[in-house]
Amino acid sequence: MAGGAGTRFWPLSRRRLPKQLLPLNGTRTMVAETAARVSGIVPTENVMAVTGSLLRKPIAAALPGVPARNILCEPVGRNTAACVAWAAIEIHRREPDAVMVVLPADHIVDPIDRFVTDVCHALALADSRRCLVTFGIQPDAPATGYGYLQAGPPLPDALPGSGACKVDAFLEKPDLARAKELIAAPGCYWNSGMFAWRADVVLEEFARHLPDLLAALREMDGRRKRGRIPQATVDAAYPGLPSISIDKGVLERSDRVAMIPAGFRWSDIGGWNAVAELWPADANGNRSRDPLVAVDAAGNVVATRGKPVALLGVQDLAIVDSGDALLVCRRDLAEEVRRVVAELEPAGLGRLL
Amino acid sequence: MAGGAGTRFWPLSRRRLPKQLLPLNGTRTMVAETAARVSGIVPTENVMAVTGSLLRKPIAAALPGVPARNILCEPVGRNTAACVAWAAIEIHRREPDAVMVVLPADHIVDPIDRFVTDVCHALALADSRRCLVTFGIQPDAPATGYGYLQAGPPLPDALPGSGACKVDAFLEKPDLARAKELIAAPGCYWNSGMFAWRADVVLEEFARHLPDLLAALREMDGRRKRGRIPQATVDAAYPGLPSISIDKGVLERSDRVAMIPAGFRWSDIGGWNAVAELWPADANGNRSRDPLVAVDAAGNVVATRGKPVALLGVQDLAIVDSGDALLVCRRDLAEEVRRVVAELEPAGLGRLL
Repeated sequence: MAGGAGTRFWPLSRRRLPKQLLPLNGTRTMVAETAARVSGIVPTENVMAVTGSLLRKPIAAALPGVPARNILCEPVGRNTAACVAWAAIEIHRREPDAVMVVLPADHIVDPIDRFVTDVCHALALADSRRCLVTFGIQPDAPATGYGYLQAGPPLPDALPGSGACKVDAFLEKPDLARAKELIAAPGCYWNSGMFAWRADVVLEEFARHLPDLLAALREMDGRRKRGRIPQATVDAAYPGLPSISIDKGVLERSDRVAMIPAGFRWSDIGGWNAVAELWPADANGNRSRDPLVAVDAAGNVVATRGKPVALLGVQDLAIVDSGDALLVCRRDLAEEVRRVVAELEPAGLGRLL
Repeated sequence: MAGGAGTRFWPLSRRRLPKQLLPLNGTRTMVAETAARVSGIVPTENVMAVTGSLLRKPIAAALPGVPARNILCEPVGRNTAACVAWAAIEIHRREPDAVMVVLPADHIVDPIDRFVTDVCHALALADSRRCLVTFGIQPDAPATGYGYLQAGPPLPDALPGSGACKVDAFLEKPDLARAKELIAAPGCYWNSGMFAWRADVVLEEFARHLPDLLAALREMDGRRKRGRIPQATVDAAYPGLPSISIDKGVLERSDRVAMIPAGFRWSDIGGWNAVAELWPADANGNRSRDPLVAVDAAGNVVATRGKPVALLGVQDLAIVDSGDALLVCRRDLAEEVRRVVAELEPAGLGRLL
C-alpha cells in the first residue's frame, strides 16, 4: 500500500513526493525499505504496489525489479479497502492459491528478523486456517493516533511460539484517558494495519461485507484488453468506489479474524515526533541528522537536508528545510502541519504542495 | 566607519560579509545607503571609508566613484579612536581646512532630509566654533545598548533652529532601571556615535587626550612611498595602537564638545529585533520580507533570502536562513547570537564564520 499524500511531512513531503518516497529512516525510501524487508520471503517479481497515478514513475523507480504490471495506480484515493481488494483480485487471477501479506509502504519495523518470523507465522496461519491475520503491537504509550485490538482466546492448533489468538474486538482511536485504560488492560494491542491472508479468503470476505466494492472492481478487472485494464477504465471506475478502510469494511465485520502478537517494534511514523525517535539525540534531546549547534536549546527536531543549523534558546520545535521551503513549528503541533499546508494555495504558494 | 565583524547578523553576516555589506533596509548595502545619504553634501570623491583589510574589495564595490586611495584598510580592528584619527590625518593632509562628518556605515536614519539639515548645522557649527559636534537622539525606549548624553546649556550664538548646546556629561550604557530614569530626565539623549568636526580640531584633541595613538599614526603616515603608505607599514603599526573608542578616548575628556539634537529617527540596528522594525508586519506582528504562512504564530522575525516559510504555533522567534546555514533563536536572545557563532569552529563549522 504505497498511496497516501503525506502532508504531515511537508515541506519534505509533497503531492509528488509523499512520505513513502522519503528516506526517513536511513538512505533508502520507505517503500524500498518495505520491499527489502520481505525480500527473503516474497520474490521481487511477486511484490505488488498500489499507489496513486501521480506516483507511478517514482514508485517504479524505488522498486527496481518489480514488474511494471505489479504497480497498480489509483486515479483517486479510496482508502484501504479498495486498494486491498484490487490487489487481491490481481493476485488471485495470477495464482488462485496465493497467500498475501499487506504492508503499508511507510511504516518502520525493527528488528527485521523478528518481523520476518512473525510474517512467516502469519502466512502459514492464514493459509492453513483460511483466516484473516492481523499483527497486534504491544503498546508502549497511550497513543491516541492508533486503533486498538482486544485479543481473544489463543488459537489451540496454531504454530507453537506464534502466540496466535482470536480477536474479540476492534477499538476506534481512543481519547487519552481511554488510551491509558487500554494500555493498562491485558490483551490490548495496537492495530498495526499490516495483514496476511489468502487472496481467495479475503475476496470471500469482501463478497460478504463489501459486495458493491468487490463487484465494481471485478467489473473493472473484466474490461481487460490484451492483458491489461485500460487507464480510462480505471479512471471511470475508481471515483465511484466506496471509500472505507479495510479495518472498518472487512475486519470489524468478519468472524474469521486472528491476531499474531508482534515480536518487533513498530511505528507508523505519523509525523516528525515519531521520526525524531529514529535519529541521534544530543545531551539535551535535540535530534538531527544534520550539523547542529544548539545553545540553551532542548528537545528540538531538525531536518534540513544537510544544511547546518544553529539554535539559541529554543525548545521543542520541529524545524524542516526542504531547500525550497522552511517549516518551523511547535513539536506538539507537528501532527497538524496540514493546517499550514492548507494555507499555501491561498498564499500563492501552491507550487510547494 | 565601515569596519566591524557583525556577528549579531549571523548567518547572513560573515567575516567577509558584515552588516555594513548587507541590504538590511532595502536593496542597497548599508554602507552604500550611508554614502548616498550625504551625497548632496559630500562629493563622492571626498567620501572616505575605513574598513578591515578583508573587506577592501567588497567595500570598494559598494562605493562606486569613491577613489581607491579613500579606502583605508585596518589590518586589525582597534576601535573607533584609531579609525577616526587615521581618517583625520589623511583628510587634513589633503585639505588643512577640511570639516568632516563621521558616520558609522551600518546605521539607519529617517527621514533623510532632516538628517541632511542636521549634518549641515553640525558642519557649520564645527567649523565656526572649532568644536566637536555630536548628534543626540531623543530616546523612545529605555535602551540599555546605547550610551547617553546629558545636554548642557544652549550655545548662545549657534545657528537658529539647530538647537545646539553644550554637553555636560557622557553616560555609560546603563542597566534597565537606570535607563528608565535617564529617559524620564530632561536633556538626556542617546549618543548616536555620529560626529562632525574640523580635521585640525579633532587632531588637536587627539594630541591632547590620546597623544600616543596620534604619534603612532603620524609615524605610520610619515612612511609613505610614492604617495601611499606601504601595506607592510600599516600591518606593523596597527596592532600596537591602543584600542579605545573615540567617545571614551576623546569626547569624554574634551571641553570642546557640543551637541545637536537630532531631528531624525535613528537606529544602529544592533540585531534582528531592530531590523524587524523596518519590515512589514502581519496582523499578528510577524515580520518578513519573504513569503510567509503563519498559523497560530505571532511576533516572529523571518529573513530567508526569498525562501517561503511556514510557521505553526511559534512565538517571538528570529529565523534567518542564509542559504548555507539556518539560525532559529528566541528574539529576546537575538543580541546574543555570538554565543552560537562561538560554537561553530568547535563544531567543525568554521567555514560558516
